[in-house]
Amino acid sequence: MAGKSPTEKKELVADWPALTRTFIQPESDAAKSTLIKYMEQILFGLQDFLKTHVGFTEAISLKHLADRFTNSLISQNPDKKLADVITDLIEDIAPHAVNVASPYFVGHMTSAIPFFMVHLKTIVAALNQNLVKIETSKVVSVVEKQVLAKIHRLIYQQSDAFYKEHIQSTYTTLGCFTENGTLSNLTALWVARNALLSPKTGFEGVEKEGLKAAYDAYGIHRCVLLVSKRGHYSLNKAGGLLGLGNRNIIAVDVDANNRIDLVKLEETIRTLLKGPRKAAVLAVIGIAGTTETGSVDPLREMAGICGEHNIHFHVDAAWGGPTLMSEKYRHLLSGIEHADSVTIDGHKQFYMPMSSGMVYFKDPAIMDNIIYHANYVNRPGSVDLGIKSPSGSREANSLILDSALKIMGSRGYALLIDHGIETARKFADEIENRKDFQLITSPELNILTYRFCPFDLQEKLAGSDDRQRVRINETLNDINRQIQRRQREAGKSFVSRTTLDIKDFPGQHIVVLRTVIMNPMTTIDILCEILNEQEEIYKTMIRDGF
Amino acid sequence: MAGKSPTEKKELVADWPALTRTFIQPESDAAKSTLIKYMEQILFGLQDFLKTHVGFTEAISLKHLADRFTNSLISQNPDKKLADVITDLIEDIAPHAVNVASPYFVGHMTSAIPFFMVHLKTIVAALNQNLVKIETSKVVSVVEKQVLAKIHRLIYQQSDAFYKEHIQSTYTTLGCFTENGTLSNLTALWVARNALLSPKTGFEGVEKEGLKAAYDAYGIHRCVLLVSKRGHYSLNKAGGLLGLGNRNIIAVDVDANNRIDLVKLEETIRTLLKGPRKAAVLAVIGIAGTTETGSVDPLREMAGICGEHNIHFHVDAAWGGPTLMSEKYRHLLSGIEHADSVTIDGHKQFYMPMSSGMVYFKDPAIMDNIIYHANYVNRPGSVDLGIKSPSGSREANSLILDSALKIMGSRGYALLIDHGIETARKFADEIENRKDFQLITSPELNILTYRFCPFDLQEKLAGSDDRQRVRINETLNDINRQIQRRQREAGKSFVSRTTLDIKDFPGQHIVVLRTVIMNPMTTIDILCEILNEQEEIYKTMIRDGF
Repeated sequence: MAGKSPTEKKELVADWPALTRTFIQPESDAAKSTLIKYMEQILFGLQDFLKTHVGFTEAISLKHLADRFTNSLISQNPDKKLADVITDLIEDIAPHAVNVASPYFVGHMTSAIPFFMVHLKTIVAALNQNLVKIETSKVVSVVEKQVLAKIHRLIYQQSDAFYKEHIQSTYTTLGCFTENGTLSNLTALWVARNALLSPKTGFEGVEKEGLKAAYDAYGIHRCVLLVSKRGHYSLNKAGGLLGLGNRNIIAVDVDANNRIDLVKLEETIRTLLKGPRKAAVLAVIGIAGTTETGSVDPLREMAGICGEHNIHFHVDAAWGGPTLMSEKYRHLLSGIEHADSVTIDGHKQFYMPMSSGMVYFKDPAIMDNIIYHANYVNRPGSVDLGIKSPSGSREANSLILDSALKIMGSRGYALLIDHGIETARKFADEIENRKDFQLITSPELNILTYRFCPFDLQEKLAGSDDRQRVRINETLNDINRQIQRRQREAGKSFVSRTTLDIKDFPGQHIVVLRTVIMNPMTTIDILCEILNEQEEIYKTMIRDGF
Repeated sequence: MAGKSPTEKKELVADWPALTRTFIQPESDAAKSTLIKYMEQILFGLQDFLKTHVGFTEAISLKHLADRFTNSLISQNPDKKLADVITDLIEDIAPHAVNVASPYFVGHMTSAIPFFMVHLKTIVAALNQNLVKIETSKVVSVVEKQVLAKIHRLIYQQSDAFYKEHIQSTYTTLGCFTENGTLSNLTALWVARNALLSPKTGFEGVEKEGLKAAYDAYGIHRCVLLVSKRGHYSLNKAGGLLGLGNRNIIAVDVDANNRIDLVKLEETIRTLLKGPRKAAVLAVIGIAGTTETGSVDPLREMAGICGEHNIHFHVDAAWGGPTLMSEKYRHLLSGIEHADSVTIDGHKQFYMPMSSGMVYFKDPAIMDNIIYHANYVNRPGSVDLGIKSPSGSREANSLILDSALKIMGSRGYALLIDHGIETARKFADEIENRKDFQLITSPELNILTYRFCPFDLQEKLAGSDDRQRVRINETLNDINRQIQRRQREAGKSFVSRTTLDIKDFPGQHIVVLRTVIMNPMTTIDILCEILNEQEEIYKTMIRDGF
C-alpha cells in the first residue's frame, strides 16, 4: 500500500473550517491549481498505470487482493488527505483494476470510451442535478426529454407531427433513462404486465390489487413470457421480481443461426392459449444482439405474430440498438419499429461511461401504467421525470448522451458500428482459415464465438459416433477452458468464454471462446495476435503434458 | 444559444482518424493541456455560472426552455466540437439548471457536495469498471465488499469474528450497492418476499413459481406490508412492482410526533393475522428520517413487535442512516441494529454525487433468495457482485464512498450531521419566536416543516369552530402555496412545500413549507433571511390585494 509509514504520518483531525472549505468554490489561484493538478493525475496518471497490463490478470491473485481489504472499521478521524487518496487510487487500485480500455480486451461488452466521456461525466457530477423532479433539475429534464425523442425517432421513425406533440409534453413519455439494461427490461415488462392486467369493472388493476387478484379477475392461471434460449438472464430476473415466477419465462428454441425458431414460437403460443389451465402471454421478447452470440431475432416476423395475437412485443436491443445509426447495417434490425418497447444501453454501443440504460415505448401513453406520485415531489402534469420510472433519484446521464450525439453525429457512431461488424467478419474468416480453430457462431453484428479445436481432433470428431463425440467434446471443453484462463492470466489479452448448446452436438454443452469487437483500436492484426497466443498456449499445454 | 452563426460555421465531418484519436491517450503536451483546460472550465466555469442565481427560478420559464429543446433529429455529421459543447453546457445549460449547491437551497435532500467528490466521480468514469462481474472490475469488487462491511458494521456492530468471516466471503453478502433508495427498498422487500414464500415440499419458491402459486402453497390470500403514513412512495412502488399490489402497503397512523403509532401497529397486525381471508405480514417498515418531516420511528419497539410475530423488519434509513456516525446523535436511531434490512442512500447524507443507494442485511445469507447466474458471467462461488443485485451493469460508486470515508473520517461526517440537527433546532426556535409563523413539525433530525400564519389568523383559528377552521386553513394553504412559489421564482432561495394531515386539524390537508438542512454553509442567519423574505413576500401579497 502506498503511503507514509506510521512514524512519519501526522495524525489528521476532522475540523469544521477545513471541512466547510471543501464545500465552497476555491478562490485562490493556489487552491485552484491544486484541484487542477489532481485532475491531471486522474486523466493521465490513471491511464499510465492501467497501461502496464491488460485484462483480468493473476499477477496478484484475487485471494491476495482480498486479504488486503479486510478492514471493517471506518476510521474516526480522516485517514488520508485527498492527495494521498488520489495517489493510492492511481498507484494501488488502478493497477489491479481491469484495463477494459485495451484493444486486446475483447471479452466483454465494456471497452475504451472516447476521452470526452470522462469530461461529460465530470460535468454531470459537478452539476449534481437530480432528475427525479424538475425542482432539482429544471433545464436538464427538458434536455432529457429531447434526447429521449431523438432515440425514439431513431427506432420508430414517426412523423414530425408526432414528435412535435410529444417531445416536451408533460403528459406523455417516449421512454425513460434507467441505470442499465436489466432495469430497462424490468421496466418494459412491468409496463406490459400492468397494461395486460389493467383496471376493469370490479378490478382496480394489478399494480394496485396484486397478481393473485389480477389472475382471478382475468380468469387466468399464469402469465408467460416467451424469449429465445439466448435471452439475457435479466429477463428471468424480471419475471421473478414482478411476481410472475421465472419459470414462466419460457425459452424457445433457436435455429442454426441462433435466432428464435418462429415455428416453435407460434406453436408455443397456440399451445399456451388453448391449454387446460389458461395462460396469458404477457410478452414476446425479441433480441437485437444476443449477449453470447450477437444474433438478431427475426424482428419483423415476431412483430407479425405478436400483432396477430395482440401480445406486447418487447425488443432487448441493449447491445444492438445503436446499429440503427449505421446506414449500412441498420437493416439488420429491420422490424424493430414494430416493437411495443425497446431496451438500449448507453454504456454499451453508445460508448457512455458506466452505467446508463434506456427503455422506449411506441405508445407515448403506455407508461401511465406505472405512474407514482408524492405530495412533496412529482406532481401530476408536471415535467417531473420521476413520475414514470423504476428509480427515484437519478443522475443526468441523458446530458452525456445528448452531448455525445452532437460531438459524434450519427455517422461518427456509424463508423464505430461498421468497424465492429466488418472486423468481426474478417476475424471469422481468419478463424475459418486456421486449421486448429473452429468458428462456432458467425458474427451477425460484432460478436462471434469459436473454439480451439486441434486439427486431429476435428478429424476424429467427423469420423466418430455420438458417444465418442461426447468424449472428444469434453476434451475440447477442457482445452478451451484452460486456454482462456491461461491467456487471461498472462495478462496480454482477454477473451471470455461461455457454454453453448449447438445444433451439431445436440444435448451437449460446448465451451466456446467469445469475442466482442467494439473498441475501434481492435484491429484484425490484434485479433490475429490473440489467436497466435492461443496456439502458443496450446503448444505449451501439450509440452507440459496437459 | 451560444455558437457561431451558420455562415461562419465550418461543416464538420465524421472521420475515422479523428474519431479513433478520441479513444487513445493523448501523447502530445498540447493535446494534454487542451484536455486539462476543459477540466478547468468544468471545475470553475460551471460554478461561476451557477452562482448567478439560486434554485428553481422562473427568470426563463420552463415553457420557454421546453420550446427551445424540440429537435428530435440526431445530426448525421458532428454538430459541434467538444470545446463548443462544453461551452454550451457552461453558458447555456448550467445557468438554467438548479443551483442545488447554494446554502439558500434548503428545499430538497440535494445539496452542495465536497469538491473532491467530483474528482472521485471522474476517477470512477476514467476507470470505467463494471461491478457486475469480477472480470470487469477485479480489485474494485474487493474494495466494494470492504466498504459494504464498514457500513454494515456501522449499523449492526457485529463482532470482529463476524466481519472477518464475511467481509471477503464469496458466498455471503452483507448488502449491495444500488442506484437509489427506491431500488434499495425494492431489493429489501424482494428479498423479504422470497424469504417468506420460500421453497418447501411441493413448491419451488415464489421467485420461480410466481405469487399465485406461492399464495396457494402457503394458503394465504394476500401479503401486506405495514409502514407509517409518512412512508416514502417508493414502498408503494415496490409493492406494485413485486406483484403484491400497492393497496397491500398499509399506512399505519402516526402519533403527534409523526412516528408510527405502536398500538395501532400491533392492532393492525393482530387483525390481519386473524382475519377471515388469511393475510401474511411480509414486512414491517420503520423509517429513520421520513422524507417530509425527518421523523424517526420507534425502531427498538418495532423490532420487538416484529420479533414476536416473526416478521421481516426493514428500516428505510435512506435519509437518516449516516446519523449513526455522530457520537452525539446516533442514539436517535437506536434499535436499527435489530433490522433485518436497512436502506441508506449515498447521495444524501454521505454527500456523494447522484446517484448511489445501498441496502444492508443482518443475515449474510439472506440475499441468496435473489441469486441469478449466467454462463458467460456471474459464476456461482465467484466474487461476481452481479449475482445478488437488482441491477446488471453498475458503476463503481463504492470507490467514491470508500475514498470519502478515508478523507472525512466518521467524525468529519459527524460534524455535518451535528450541524444539520443543531441548526434545525435553532431554526425551529426562530420560527416559534416569530409571531407570523407556526412550527408544524419539530426537527428530530435536520428536517422541519412550518407555515406562514399571520398572527391575526392564528388568533381567529384559536377561537373558531370546526367549520370556520377549515375555511381559515384553506386561506392559509393558499397563502403558503403563493409564498413558496413567489420565493422560488424570485430565485434567491428555495424551500419546498408539501401537504400534511396533522393532529390539530383532523381530516384537513395542511400546506406546509419544508426545510432540509444538510449544506454546512446553511447557517441560522441564512435561514432567518429566508423567513424575512417570506414576510416581505406576504406584505407584497397584501399590498397587491392577494
